[in-house]
Amino acid sequence: MNNFVLTAKDPGSAARAGILSTDHGEVRTPIFMPVGTVGSVKGVYHRDLSADIGAQIILGNTYHLYLRPGLDTLLKAGGLHRFEHWDGPILTDSGGFQVFSLAPIRKITEEGCRFASHIDGSRHLFTPENNVDTQRVIGADIVMALDECCPGDADYRYAEKSLRLTQGWLKRFAARFDQTEPLYGYRQVMFPIIQGCVYPDLRRRAVDEALSLDNDNRGGYAVGGLAVGEPTEKMYEMLEVTCPLLPEGKPRYLMGVGTPVNILEGIARGIDMFDCVMPTRNGRNGMLFTWEGILNMRNAKWTDDFTPLDPLGTSFVDGYYTRAYLHHLFIAKEMFAAMVATEHNLAFYLDLVRQARLHIEAGDFAAWKDAVVPKLSRRL
Amino acid sequence: MNNFVLTAKDPGSAARAGILSTDHGEVRTPIFMPVGTVGSVKGVYHRDLSADIGAQIILGNTYHLYLRPGLDTLLKAGGLHRFEHWDGPILTDSGGFQVFSLAPIRKITEEGCRFASHIDGSRHLFTPENNVDTQRVIGADIVMALDECCPGDADYRYAEKSLRLTQGWLKRFAARFDQTEPLYGYRQVMFPIIQGCVYPDLRRRAVDEALSLDNDNRGGYAVGGLAVGEPTEKMYEMLEVTCPLLPEGKPRYLMGVGTPVNILEGIARGIDMFDCVMPTRNGRNGMLFTWEGILNMRNAKWTDDFTPLDPLGTSFVDGYYTRAYLHHLFIAKEMFAAMVATEHNLAFYLDLVRQARLHIEAGDFAAWKDAVVPKLSRRL
Repeated sequence: MNNFVLTAKDPGSAARAGILSTDHGEVRTPIFMPVGTVGSVKGVYHRDLSADIGAQIILGNTYHLYLRPGLDTLLKAGGLHRFEHWDGPILTDSGGFQVFSLAPIRKITEEGCRFASHIDGSRHLFTPENNVDTQRVIGADIVMALDECCPGDADYRYAEKSLRLTQGWLKRFAARFDQTEPLYGYRQVMFPIIQGCVYPDLRRRAVDEALSLDNDNRGGYAVGGLAVGEPTEKMYEMLEVTCPLLPEGKPRYLMGVGTPVNILEGIARGIDMFDCVMPTRNGRNGMLFTWEGILNMRNAKWTDDFTPLDPLGTSFVDGYYTRAYLHHLFIAKEMFAAMVATEHNLAFYLDLVRQARLHIEAGDFAAWKDAVVPKLSRRL
Repeated sequence: MNNFVLTAKDPGSAARAGILSTDHGEVRTPIFMPVGTVGSVKGVYHRDLSADIGAQIILGNTYHLYLRPGLDTLLKAGGLHRFEHWDGPILTDSGGFQVFSLAPIRKITEEGCRFASHIDGSRHLFTPENNVDTQRVIGADIVMALDECCPGDADYRYAEKSLRLTQGWLKRFAARFDQTEPLYGYRQVMFPIIQGCVYPDLRRRAVDEALSLDNDNRGGYAVGGLAVGEPTEKMYEMLEVTCPLLPEGKPRYLMGVGTPVNILEGIARGIDMFDCVMPTRNGRNGMLFTWEGILNMRNAKWTDDFTPLDPLGTSFVDGYYTRAYLHHLFIAKEMFAAMVATEHNLAFYLDLVRQARLHIEAGDFAAWKDAVVPKLSRRL
């Protein structure tokens, strides 16, 4: 059974288009996945995620959901889909990254990671085994292996040690995953995470070891530990090292990336799936991503700009509201500002990957990418 | 020219149903008007205000809009309707109440009210004359006279002095209003505000003097200075004193009121229009108003309640989301919590006045009101 079918390959780059099948529907790749950390994509109605933004799959986060609402409630609800009423596919991160970035106290050993909750200081332990069980309860269609996210500026020694830990956890995670069943009657697959920092030989070793565990339950492969402090060129280099080693018939997910340019460059290097808080978090802070460049809506230059928010935008907010109005909402600190900016940004990110897909199918992705990249990062 | 037509009167109370006509459309009364202080009803899309919530008219606030975005921007935008892209009727409060409640420094004299902005401390002066001009720039369909809002516990001497000031301002406001024209090609009408605190003879005097200025530009009459600290029974008593003195053929607006019960009791005493921040502000804090009573969504009792938010609710959120989910969103401090609760509450308030209207038309409003009032204020 193959849950991923390639439908097109770009002749001028490593870009691919495909269809990822889940029991909650198909995902056309390349795809961007809005981040719904605690069970809501901040500031966005589920109705609008599908109908306006065009989201095909969203994220949840194991660390956050495990702490709140907790496994007891999620189990009683029948899993995260039913709890938050989202009928499309969901992917959950394992929570390893959040332990690393949020927990005030943490201790990482071969056994797993012990941590104190950032909410109430209560003590918890994630092991590869209980992390599988937790993600079974949450019930995402795609679950991520538990890993240690190595900082982008780690030295080789640290990176190798960290990789060894991650690989040990991966074996146990995969074993537990293969021995257990989903709880709610629909299929779950897991993605191993390729670590290895900025060191090509570690990345290669990570792929080798992950592939030695390959089977039908490995729904795809993630590339982790990038966009965590290393230079952007290093990130691209690591993709060039890693992607060619991954099986062509499974989707590849670049975790936590990134800017619109990062996404197109990732696609060009063979990545199929992306997630990032940038469109939502930066949106809440007044940053708008568009095909013409980046707008800071707090800037006084928009005060009397009564043109539509984004003439090229696909969201209903783009033609409905003006730049002057959104600027005013940000200055007046109205919560509606965050809603409108988030809606726009997510719609833009989904349009970005949709256009990328169309150009891959048309066979002119590489040229198109080179033409749009300079505009995407301009500050307007 | 008559902008208000009565369509039904309840035999068992002073309740009325009518149609208020504006150049931005008709409003069926009794009506509740969502508060869009700074040019947005906090947390709600304009699309949903009309299509989901059923709002027919919304509020803006002169104090806030004058400070931000300011008259220059509003004039260039072509008024508030175009600025915020709301095609239905708008009513603006004069800002007198906000000077009273928000400005850190204020001095009220016969000339007008001097105040310091709560945003940047800058000094400003509202006079009856410039307040008309300001509301011409904002361009609401219905503009409120500038008044001093007298505290509900004021003694007679203070209340009488305050009323004298308000009445002097009203004469000047009405004169300026009658001498000036709207700026954007559609009609504006003004509502005098009846003050007089909890003193029947002052309320009567206020009506007398306001009616002496009556003409076609007086689109209706507002009852102000209630729900500002006086006992609820006093509020109802003042409505019983005031409403019968007001012209039957013009709408009556009870400012800043109130709970669902207050609204039904106001309707029973002859009030046609209401506004209040309660459904929006209390919604943001986790309070849900329903036909069965009031729910505090922060309460742990909802943790595992997977029933719909409100089985009797008319909003799309009511059947879509569960109590357990909304409880979780509030506990996790997700902004989506405020959005869902606000959407529900406004839809409920609009349903409340819609049902009231239907019962007035059916001639059984009084009995219906007595049957539903005990449930509306229950704590669930």
